Amino acid sequence: MVIVMQVGTEESQIEAVIARVQELGYHPHPIYGTELTVVAAVGDERGKAQLQSLESMPGVDRVVPILQPFKLSGSEFKKEKTIVRVGDIAIGGEEIIIMAGPCSVESKEQMLEVAEAVKEAGAKILRGGAFKPRTSPYSFQGLGEEGLQFLAAAREQTGLLIVTELLDSHDLELVAQYSDIIQIGARNMQNYGMLSYLATIDKPVLLKRGMMSKVEELLLSAEYILSGGNYNVMLCERGIRTFETATRNTFDINAIPFIKKFSHLPIIADPSHGTGNWEYVGPVAKAAIAAGADGLLIEVHPHPEVALSDGAQSLRPDKFARLVQELKPFAEAAGRRL
Amino acid sequence: MVIVMQVGTEESQIEAVIARVQELGYHPHPIYGTELTVVAAVGDERGKAQLQSLESMPGVDRVVPILQPFKLSGSEFKKEKTIVRVGDIAIGGEEIIIMAGPCSVESKEQMLEVAEAVKEAGAKILRGGAFKPRTSPYSFQGLGEEGLQFLAAAREQTGLLIVTELLDSHDLELVAQYSDIIQIGARNMQNYGMLSYLATIDKPVLLKRGMMSKVEELLLSAEYILSGGNYNVMLCERGIRTFETATRNTFDINAIPFIKKFSHLPIIADPSHGTGNWEYVGPVAKAAIAAGADGLLIEVHPHPEVALSDGAQSLRPDKFARLVQELKPFAEAAGRRL
Amino acid sequence: MVIVMQVGTEESQIEAVIARVQELGYHPHPIYGTELTVVAAVGDERGKAQLQSLESMPGVDRVVPILQPFKLSGSEFKKEKTIVRVGDIAIGGEEIIIMAGPCSVESKEQMLEVAEAVKEAGAKILRGGAFKPRTSPYSFQGLGEEGLQFLAAAREQTGLLIVTELLDSHDLELVAQYSDIIQIGARNMQNYGMLSYLATIDKPVLLKRGMMSKVEELLLSAEYILSGGNYNVMLCERGIRTFETATRNTFDINAIPFIKKFSHLPIIADPSHGTGNWEYVGPVAKAAIAAGADGLLIEVHPHPEVALSDGAQSLRPDKFARLVQELKPFAEAAGRRL
Amino acid sequence: MVIVMQVGTEESQIEAVIARVQELGYHPHPIYGTELTVVAAVGDERGKAQLQSLESMPGVDRVVPILQPFKLSGSEFKKEKTIVRVGDIAIGGEEIIIMAGPCSVESKEQMLEVAEAVKEAGAKILRGGAFKPRTSPYSFQGLGEEGLQFLAAAREQTGLLIVTELLDSHDLELVAQYSDIIQIGARNMQNYGMLSYLATIDKPVLLKRGMMSKVEELLLSAEYILSGGNYNVMLCERGIRTFETATRNTFDINAIPFIKKFSHLPIIADPSHGTGNWEYVGPVAKAAIAAGADGLLIEVHPHPEVALSDGAQSLRPDKFARLVQELKPFAEAAGRRL
Repeated sequence: MVIVMQVGTEESQIEAVIARVQELGYHPHPIYGTELTVVAAVGDERGKAQLQSLESMPGVDRVVPILQPFKLSGSEFKKEKTIVRVGDIAIGGEEIIIMAGPCSVESKEQMLEVAEAVKEAGAKILRGGAFKPRTSPYSFQGLGEEGLQFLAAAREQTGLLIVTELLDSHDLELVAQYSDIIQIGARNMQNYGMLSYLATIDKPVLLKRGMMSKVEELLLSAEYILSGGNYNVMLCERGIRTFETATRNTFDINAIPFIKKFSHLPIIADPSHGTGNWEYVGPVAKAAIAAGADGLLIEVHPHPEVALSDGAQSLRPDKFARLVQELKPFAEAAGRRL
Repeated sequence: MVIVMQVGTEESQIEAVIARVQELGYHPHPIYGTELTVVAAVGDERGKAQLQSLESMPGVDRVVPILQPFKLSGSEFKKEKTIVRVGDIAIGGEEIIIMAGPCSVESKEQMLEVAEAVKEAGAKILRGGAFKPRTSPYSFQGLGEEGLQFLAAAREQTGLLIVTELLDSHDLELVAQYSDIIQIGARNMQNYGMLSYLATIDKPVLLKRGMMSKVEELLLSAEYILSGGNYNVMLCERGIRTFETATRNTFDINAIPFIKKFSHLPIIADPSHGTGNWEYVGPVAKAAIAAGADGLLIEVHPHPEVALSDGAQSLRPDKFARLVQELKPFAEAAGRRL
Repeated sequence: MVIVMQVGTEESQIEAVIARVQELGYHPHPIYGTELTVVAAVGDERGKAQLQSLESMPGVDRVVPILQPFKLSGSEFKKEKTIVRVGDIAIGGEEIIIMAGPCSVESKEQMLEVAEAVKEAGAKILRGGAFKPRTSPYSFQGLGEEGLQFLAAAREQTGLLIVTELLDSHDLELVAQYSDIIQIGARNMQNYGMLSYLATIDKPVLLKRGMMSKVEELLLSAEYILSGGNYNVMLCERGIRTFETATRNTFDINAIPFIKKFSHLPIIADPSHGTGNWEYVGPVAKAAIAAGADGLLIEVHPHPEVALSDGAQSLRPDKFARLVQELKPFAEAAGRRL
Repeated sequence: MVIVMQVGTEESQIEAVIARVQELGYHPHPIYGTELTVVAAVGDERGKAQLQSLESMPGVDRVVPILQPFKLSGSEFKKEKTIVRVGDIAIGGEEIIIMAGPCSVESKEQMLEVAEAVKEAGAKILRGGAFKPRTSPYSFQGLGEEGLQFLAAAREQTGLLIVTELLDSHDLELVAQYSDIIQIGARNMQNYGMLSYLATIDKPVLLKRGMMSKVEELLLSAEYILSGGNYNVMLCERGIRTFETATRNTFDINAIPFIKKFSHLPIIADPSHGTGNWEYVGPVAKAAIAAGADGLLIEVHPHPEVALSDGAQSLRPDKFARLVQELKPFAEAAGRRL
């Protein structure tokens, strides 16, 4: 951490900062510049808040962090890429894994129909929400446990694995019982209580980036799960909120190479939420593979115009099947297979 | 809701949209323009997702919502302002209420010292976090129930009421037992599970706006609590995340008149998080009162430079006392008192 | 345009709106809903400001535009894709065109060295700034006309075409004389005076999206040039400003399919500015091709560590050459060639 | 500037950085930490780009600037506040100055009517655009020189001073001839060519912040004018672009105390553009005064519903007159007068 003093600070103020840096267990290195003084504080910065508080000392302009705040999720800690194994599937390896299905589980028939279709097209994992985070309390809130049962029925029939969202930590056991991968949605990325519970179970987690979260914060949320002992974490880029209203979210393609540089965890792309429009799902799915994504999460609905949620961004099964074919040469160009 | 058709749509596509609008229980009004056709769908739009799904029908360009999505939190539903009464304090009335205290409860001595100081200065409610949402798992996570006990001790000694944050719905009963107002933090504004539990208890709620949530979404989150039967909700503007890095957040001053126009709920301003810098807390607190805020939430710490969290934005007790005096003429100019 | 009245509006207010809509030359269609009334105004909305002003009439809640505001740049106006021809190069056709070179022209030797290198690697157009928009007046401002001469010398030696930025409309003739394509930088995308001058010359324009501009506004800026009679416009996505600070800008990959849907103009991607970091240029360049970009604009500098500007995002010639090879299978996967 | 090396960098890479830092004329101070090494480079950082380019050297993680990049506009350079004198008006002193008038000059009658009204209400300066920056080429572009003549006529009749926007540097002489203060609009804040011309004339400048510009960049744009010799610069906060769509822009109230801390230049608030809605102009104008603004820029139109631009955010003269009365106690509370 570097403490930047104000221009014209008195020597006594610099000394007070140096003394406090030592009290907090760091080694201070003052550097006297032409215009101002900075004090570099050497030592492990994690648990950083205390040094940041030096900003309230007289004469301090600001405190600049130097170390990356994440550790277990970082590539400095673990050089080789993490491969998450679920059933006979490996996520993060050579194969690009496709997870597909409707936004909400609506009925048993719907799930069986869509499961057959996405399996046929090439998906390995079935998605579908039984508990739905809805901005309005008047929107469809999901079928709950019955929805989980429909997902399980589709798994039994097709052999697809199941990824589904945990919305409330009270339902953790229930959701863990029915699913193969537990999804944490964007709105719960910083629900630290829930993250702590996930650290204690033996189930892979798909952690979606919050629409308001920096990638650094996504890695710190993963850190909550990893530091509790659950190492099977996949990250998911699903678009961020910006000033642009032409699309529902702005898919942050830069996040993919950033994460691949700074972390060993697999990164999945969700072009459905990332664009909010089924017409853009294909181009952005291709782009995500080109940028290095390890998998895709795509919304597929047999009848989007009557979907209870997210119809506008769902692909029909035939369009999805065509897209998977189109993705193959991009996977090959990226030295992967699909 | 207005369904905008693409330029050059075929008549059969328009007819299909009209038919579906009727099936969904709305009255369709097609309007044939010079370049394109729109179909106005008349009926209650709440539970809106289904119409939005029409965007996946052939020939549809987009679906534009018309009605405000919130109802119980809206000023159309309830014309007179809501006054939340806690103990002998009325929030939302003529008096501007100040809530003050440290970010985190750190020790009993700290709480008693700060409670005496903020009471003396004019605060009516004591704030302090016993459960802390921290971006990093390596940061101080709060004292938990012991922290709640220290808050209660400070209440007993000073008569101040207590507002403290609920971080995990498993702790609801515990937090409700010790606090007078339950705070929902920015990161949990869309934790719908937690909002639903709050709807069922008899305790006022201070609902903070998410750092990347629209005010409309804040009102919809309030709607979750109101629609479950708990009408004692206060909203809190605490700054949003933008591209500007000169301050930790951008305090959205516009949100105050917007909320006062569209909602009957009291609106509290948090200039400490809204700026992230104690030097700007005063000017922004004054601005919030001038814009119409019903109360202030201000971080005060006796020794900010050793605070376990948020030291940089905390005021020392003497500065806080001076600020309260400076706020008085602004409260008067706004036709309020403090 | 749809005029949404407030809930509980008086009939006389609705009538006043209807009367004014007629006065302004539109056909009004009032639709009386269960909660409120909307007035659809049929007619060409371009020159829209006047209807927007109805928001100040009593009883009006808001005015919602329906038609896309752009016309000549839109795919409704011109169905087939525009191909911009410069020399023997066609931009917007089957071939993906690479424009490469340093951020700033620094010396004749530098330009000749880099021109040879990027030509050898496969670039068709040489970029380089002679007039530089710099945030600080104390930064290097470019070599001016001398820089243009160095570019021309590199063209003569290599046969590469030249794209360079026009920074001040006073220099239009000068820049037009030396360049094959005139670049309008992000900061001048809404410099309407300059756009008007460009409309009058016979030179293709590369129009970069402002870092704060919606794609709709980019198309409207193109409209200024097209409506003045210059149809050779290429658009350029170069990243937008968001809350994310992990990368200098957020490359808006969604903008590529959006523009390809709504416009006939070629779209060029600039992954150098879009990421601000040479390590991410490759992945994002591949992603842009996968998403449908018609060309790439890439910063290449023989010695980035001494570059007078943008060194951090510049590729060395050897890395650039390797990247071009890696891009080829992605171009093929996209049904293009490079 | 601090150069942060990657974890695990080789000693030779650190030495190479140290050598280059010296070559560039700085004094290097390497600090060897527990996990990584940083090299502090002491010396004047202005003209910073070269050090930033070190990011492309092997082993360098990133380069962190330490000094504020602005100088002449900063309060470290000039401690006492700048007071801009125009006619017998002093901006930046005890009095809060109100500039008011329509968005666009539309006719002589309109200007005379509005000028009389705003003068009567208490405004000291008349605003009105003769050259209008419009997103669409099909919108009203302003009356040009005729508009300037109408402004001059209004000045002659009322004694109000004139502020009007310069849109194209070719019109500088013309605009300078008719106006008392030259306004640079948000879209031209980084039009460096234009800023350089303004540096050379003897006329105060009102520099509006770009809608997606950081305050630091606003100060750097002011630096262009100051460093050329024109010291009469006023800054203007007019709202920034964020994800929030409830209001046209987000008025950045934090920017006012930030600017007052870091700069000596007067700061004017524009609540009309800052909110985009006449109903919020009053609360935000009061807030701006409470936060420390030195003046207000407010749109007033006698008939907003027929305004050729920005009708929705314009106040009628009677509402404006009432607002000025309401502002007075806030000015007093701030220790100012109006």
